Amino acid sequence: MHDVRVTPISPEAADGDLCARPFPEQEYLDRLGAVQARMTERSLSSLIVADPANLYYLTGYNAWSFYMPQCLIVPVDGDCHLFTRAMDAAGAHYTAFLPTDRIHGYPDQLVNRPDAHPFDWIAARALEIGVLTDDVGGYVGAEFDAHFFSVRSYLSLRSALKTAALVDSNELVNWVRVRKSPLERAMLHSAGRIAQRVMEIALGELEPGRRQCDVVAEIQHAQALGAQQLGGDYPAIVPMLPTGETAGTPHLTWSDLPLRRGEATTVELAGVFHRYHAPLARTVVLGKAPRRLVDCAEATSEGMAAVLEKLRPGTRTCDVHREFAETIGKYGLTKESRIGYSIGIGYPPDWGERTVSLRPGDETVIEENMAFHVILGMWMDGWGYETSESLLIGPDGPDLLTDIPRGLTIKA
Amino acid sequence: MHDVRVTPISPEAADGDLCARPFPEQEYLDRLGAVQARMTERSLSSLIVADPANLYYLTGYNAWSFYMPQCLIVPVDGDCHLFTRAMDAAGAHYTAFLPTDRIHGYPDQLVNRPDAHPFDWIAARALEIGVLTDDVGGYVGAEFDAHFFSVRSYLSLRSALKTAALVDSNELVNWVRVRKSPLERAMLHSAGRIAQRVMEIALGELEPGRRQCDVVAEIQHAQALGAQQLGGDYPAIVPMLPTGETAGTPHLTWSDLPLRRGEATTVELAGVFHRYHAPLARTVVLGKAPRRLVDCAEATSEGMAAVLEKLRPGTRTCDVHREFAETIGKYGLTKESRIGYSIGIGYPPDWGERTVSLRPGDETVIEENMAFHVILGMWMDGWGYETSESLLIGPDGPDLLTDIPRGLTIKA
Repeated sequence: MHDVRVTPISPEAADGDLCARPFPEQEYLDRLGAVQARMTERSLSSLIVADPANLYYLTGYNAWSFYMPQCLIVPVDGDCHLFTRAMDAAGAHYTAFLPTDRIHGYPDQLVNRPDAHPFDWIAARALEIGVLTDDVGGYVGAEFDAHFFSVRSYLSLRSALKTAALVDSNELVNWVRVRKSPLERAMLHSAGRIAQRVMEIALGELEPGRRQCDVVAEIQHAQALGAQQLGGDYPAIVPMLPTGETAGTPHLTWSDLPLRRGEATTVELAGVFHRYHAPLARTVVLGKAPRRLVDCAEATSEGMAAVLEKLRPGTRTCDVHREFAETIGKYGLTKESRIGYSIGIGYPPDWGERTVSLRPGDETVIEENMAFHVILGMWMDGWGYETSESLLIGPDGPDLLTDIPRGLTIKA
Repeated sequence: MHDVRVTPISPEAADGDLCARPFPEQEYLDRLGAVQARMTERSLSSLIVADPANLYYLTGYNAWSFYMPQCLIVPVDGDCHLFTRAMDAAGAHYTAFLPTDRIHGYPDQLVNRPDAHPFDWIAARALEIGVLTDDVGGYVGAEFDAHFFSVRSYLSLRSALKTAALVDSNELVNWVRVRKSPLERAMLHSAGRIAQRVMEIALGELEPGRRQCDVVAEIQHAQALGAQQLGGDYPAIVPMLPTGETAGTPHLTWSDLPLRRGEATTVELAGVFHRYHAPLARTVVLGKAPRRLVDCAEATSEGMAAVLEKLRPGTRTCDVHREFAETIGKYGLTKESRIGYSIGIGYPPDWGERTVSLRPGDETVIEENMAFHVILGMWMDGWGYETSESLLIGPDGPDLLTDIPRGLTIKA
């Protein structure tokens, strides 16, 4: 499945840019066009984009500035404008493809204040430029479930709009991101090469007596180093390795406690290349594996095989889930939570796209060039087992991004 | 300044816990008491706490689950309850000091859906338990500027409250966090020991020809390893190292481009211990330093000395800023943005507490046991200089958390 690997193209880097964008300008224009077409369908005059993954997708803008209010405003016709803190606006053109006259910086005096908010300034400026319109009967969309669009931002924007309605975009941009372009698929394959290397290192480093933080040190080292010429980028989620009794719960980060013989550890991590993520999970037992863990691993492997067989264009995501549930059901196992979700660009705190889920009730029809993290987390009372695959949907089935033995790793 | 070091006490760890809380239960009860006293002053019947740093402060809850809706609800009298996704609720007692009957998990079917939201479930359950009250004339507080309390969460909660008003908490918990307890001060000193080690490694690793990502690999390795017996924790912000022309902008993360002789790099990173952060910034030039950079570094060092002299109980934060502005003003330099902020617990995307800022107009009177990151970022057009110190306010002045030469590092 790994024969066809497109080498990532960095057309901007060839020009000697200091902080190169991984895609040519035309790719961003195509993406903006797709977003504006959906805005027309939804009768939105402007769209406020605050999710950093959506900002990166639409403009290439890439900086750790999302802890302060910022947004891209996309009008239904014409050019989009970026609004961010003055100190970040000054350097935004290093990564965003926008000309500097479409990048606006609000004064630093507005940050972290009880009596004023950056979105007061942003709304006023955007109305002045005309990229935000306040028409009678008009609709302005905003990302009501994005992590970095706060309630104060919303209230400030709402009070600036005297006539237009402010409505939820319902992840409009995220849904455009679901189908990956050829260059995006190359990015995901590169991320997979990094994930492969990082997981190999993680599996090698887990040994009795080592502190969890020591193993994480090696994982994070490998994540930044990347794979040969492919330099690594930071993951949206830090390495997670719930261990021993706590392996029954999924999102614990590490401690400084040593790993113990006889304990199982679930490792979940990602390889990241230019913000594209290939997440991967495996379970390791140090010493003799308990029967229940071996049995669970075997049933889950059979479940994964069934899922991979089913994951192809034309299938509904709920049917993929049912296949898994029926397979593990034969062994008396059940799983309440979803078994996968759409992936691509990720920023903290999440590498999921918040769109398609593989679960009951989700009737999304799978298409070629979608990408998923299929994650089979079996969290029991006081123990757990996890395995996962990141993949692209090819014409005839899944194209896996990594190639790591899928079952339980037993280190005697 | 480093003679007095309190060894961090881990009373829970002594009991052999799997995932120990770093503070005794009484510390959490004291913190909750302080929050409830302020709620009484503000006439709040309930407070919705969604900021993961505030959750950790009040309960010890520590997991990478904040990418999904979750909150602690604190009533003005009585016990608080935690609401999170079912898969995370199952293991929340490993870190939160709450008994399991005060931890509630919402069904996984509610995540990432257009037609239902976890906060619908949370609000209904909280009203049923009575931890959320919906009284005529009552006020419920929520964190309107927290990163992980989305607009949909707010709208869902607002529609569940038929009579009580939903109001901004104005960072109520963050303001309680401003003064550090003895155990918290010990945590910050431990974080400082880690920051010291990490910065020494970073300064050593920056060499011409090395890729930025290779240097970051060593930094991240050191951050997780920690300092001797003090295991490192993950930082709220990844290492940042704007280089060359991009050093004029503060929040760029790394690329895979090699460092070049003659270029300056600003490095900003943190040492982290049990979520307590000691951030630190320095500037390194590889080769001969340009005159303007040397001059800027010298003026900024004089500015830092003036700030440290001024930072003591009884001084207003705006006066500290003025002292800095006047000192660098003598050299024709100005700085628009704040020169520091309160620190302590941090979660991505920010290690600031969103309370006190050292800047014009902020009239907070400095008190003993506050903690600050004084960051002097001089971002110019196409170049920049940064230096910083993390410190606690002692009775007679600042107690620095690290001891690294403050000026420009020149590696010839």
